[in-house]
Formats: sequence, C-alpha cells, structure tokens
Amino acid sequence: MTPLLRVQNFTVSSDGFGAGDGQSLERPFGHADPGELLAWAFPTASWPGRTDHAGSRGLDDYFTRDFTHNIGAEIMGRNKFSPHRGPWPDLEWRGWWGDEPPFHTPVFVLTHHHRPSFTLGDTTFHFVGGEPAAILERARQAANGKDIRLGGGASVIREFLDADLVDTLHIAVSPVTLGSGTRLWESPDELRDRFHLDVVPSPSGVTHHLFWRR
Amino acid sequence: MTPLLRVQNFTVSSDGFGAGDGQSLERPFGHADPGELLAWAFPTASWPGRTDHAGSRGLDDYFTRDFTHNIGAEIMGRNKFSPHRGPWPDLEWRGWWGDEPPFHTPVFVLTHHHRPSFTLGDTTFHFVGGEPAAILERARQAANGKDIRLGGGASVIREFLDADLVDTLHIAVSPVTLGSGTRLWESPDELRDRFHLDVVPSPSGVTHHLFWRR
Repeated sequence: MTPLLRVQNFTVSSDGFGAGDGQSLERPFGHADPGELLAWAFPTASWPGRTDHAGSRGLDDYFTRDFTHNIGAEIMGRNKFSPHRGPWPDLEWRGWWGDEPPFHTPVFVLTHHHRPSFTLGDTTFHFVGGEPAAILERARQAANGKDIRLGGGASVIREFLDADLVDTLHIAVSPVTLGSGTRLWESPDELRDRFHLDVVPSPSGVTHHLFWRR
Repeated sequence: MTPLLRVQNFTVSSDGFGAGDGQSLERPFGHADPGELLAWAFPTASWPGRTDHAGSRGLDDYFTRDFTHNIGAEIMGRNKFSPHRGPWPDLEWRGWWGDEPPFHTPVFVLTHHHRPSFTLGDTTFHFVGGEPAAILERARQAANGKDIRLGGGASVIREFLDADLVDTLHIAVSPVTLGSGTRLWESPDELRDRFHLDVVPSPSGVTHHLFWRR
C-alpha cells in the first residue's frame, strides 16, 4: 500500500480553532485550556504516557490507540514544538515532552531557522524548511514505507491541505468554544468536495470527524 | 500493560445471532449470508486480503485496522475453523482461508478431538481442549506479551464470558435479522453489569458496541 499522510487526534474547538491566542511557555495552547480541549483523550487507556492500568477502552480509545499504528515519521509546525518565534534563542529547548517524547519516530519540525537535529529517547527531531511536497518527501524517506503523521498545528494542516497532500484526517471537534486563535476551518463541510466524511459523536461529548480522499 | 483477551469485529444480527443454522462447507455461516452480515467490513481499506488501493477509511475502517494491532495469538471455536463435527475426517481441511490465513499468529482451535498442529503462511494452528482458563494461559504464553484475540463463534465467546476471562469486546450489530442460529445474546444490556459500553452507530448501518471491564 502507498504510505499515507494522516492527521490523527487533532482537536479543534466547536468554532474551528486548534489553539487559542497568545501561546507562551506557560500556555502552550494560548488562551485555550488543553485539559478542556483534549478532555476526550486523556481518560483513554491508550493515551501516551499512561502508566496505570485504568483508562477507558471505548470509542475514544480507538483513536488514541491508533496514534502510533503504522506511523514512521511525523511532520509538525514549529509552534507545536516550541513557544519561541524567530531565530532559535538557544538550543536548550527540546520540546514540551520531557525526555521521552511520545513520537518514537523521526519528527520533522517546520522552521525557517536553522537548528541541528537531536535525539531524545527514540525520537529524532529534524528542523526543515521548504515546500510541503519536499518536506513530505523527506519524511517519506525517513518513514521506511510506513505512513506519515501530520501533527499540526492548524496552520500546518491547512498548508498541506492546500497543497493537496493529505490522505486522511481525524479531527475531534470539542464542545469548547474559543472565539479566536489558530483556525483549522469555518466548517468541516469545506473539505467535503475532496474528502469522504464520517461524523461520529462520542459518548464523551466530542464529535470525531473522519475524512478520506474521494 | 497486562495483555488483554479481546473480541474484535465479531458481528451479530440485530436479534443477537453470530451465525445461522445449518453450517456446511458451502455455507460457513449457515442460513446467514456473510456478505450481508459483514457488509460493514468488506468495503474498508483495512479488510484483510484487500489488494487494491480503494476502500473506505472512515469509522468502520478503525475496527478492521485494529484487527492485528498488538495481537499475539487467537483463540477460536472449532466451527470457525471447519464445518466438520466429531473426530477429524481427514487432515486435508486446513481452514477456510486458503494458503495465507489472515491471523499471522498462533491460533488455538478448541476441539475435543486430537489433531497435530500445522503452519500455513505465518499462522500456526494448534488444536486444544480443556477449560477456558487453561487455554487462555497457553495462548498467553504463545502471544509473547501481546493481547489475545477471542475470535468466536458466539458459543466460544459465551464460554469465556461465563468464565469472566474477557477484557474487551467489539461487537458489530448488523441490521440483518436471522431468527435462529448461534446466539451471542438476547440483548447487549446483559453485559452492562460487568462492562462499560459505548454504543456507536456507523454511517454504514451497523452499530458498533464497545465493551470494557468495569
């Protein structure tokens, strides 16, 4: 099978924002509360980093369980990696995820500013610029025949959608309203001309949107 | 994580039957039409054996995609393996699945009648009798720390449920009515005292029932 470029577990507010305004070290999602936005994902048994044996194994868990399944690389925007803007202030910052990031694959961070690659646990971060198609090609080579996750944020997903490079999207629409921030869409209907769409309400209150190419 | 015993993609009619009456070589599901009962699964991109690049990647595909995920062994009833009853008439019969069965793990077939193990592709079939707990223990040893799939039919699932050995169940309830056959349940509510339940209607017309232990 041809490897796919997949968006997974990306969560937006009911008004279409993936994050709020004013990202900072203290507030990685800006004025949005990630505990509220991602309330569907944290209680699942397969949420990365869970060490207890509890956790739900219903519908939402199928999505968190699928996170690493057949994924060989991730592409993410700089703001998912770091709260900094412009040239890298220092190389101390190594992401939000501690010593064992949940990716376990090569990760390509989009940035105009040079920075050497580094490895944390079994995740290696590369810092790359250029066109989406060229970046996807690099990720494909690193993914060794597996699929590539497009990790967000919203503006990176938009960029790859505009270049028609995305094969599947799982977008969880949370009941939270944000009012402003980084917008993924005005409405999921915007993608219907190019994608099939299953809309699946979860008992947790989130509505999963599953898109695949027509 | 402790390995789980999981039922996956097991499909029953709206009146609770996993197969019809009168199983035979020509009719592995008896009077039930598997094309109708499993109509939700065949069109998905991840249905085993699909070789084209088509196939849906919506909700139903999450379930077929999960089929092999972290599974290290399967336990199945004899009637899932074969239309024969009683002592094995011969050793020619090697299952319904041709030279490349979709399991890719050790498979333990429940039977009172001795038969030597054999390997087809990367699936090895073992023929075992005894109590569910002892069979599960053998499967666990073979599964190397991964989960074990409880493959059905309905009477085998009932037997392991009665012994309280099942951790999660994904049961797809098809809109088909059968009237008689091998019954899984009168109603999914029978399991609610021991399991959490997410009920998830799919756009394909099937209703996924996801159970996990309380």
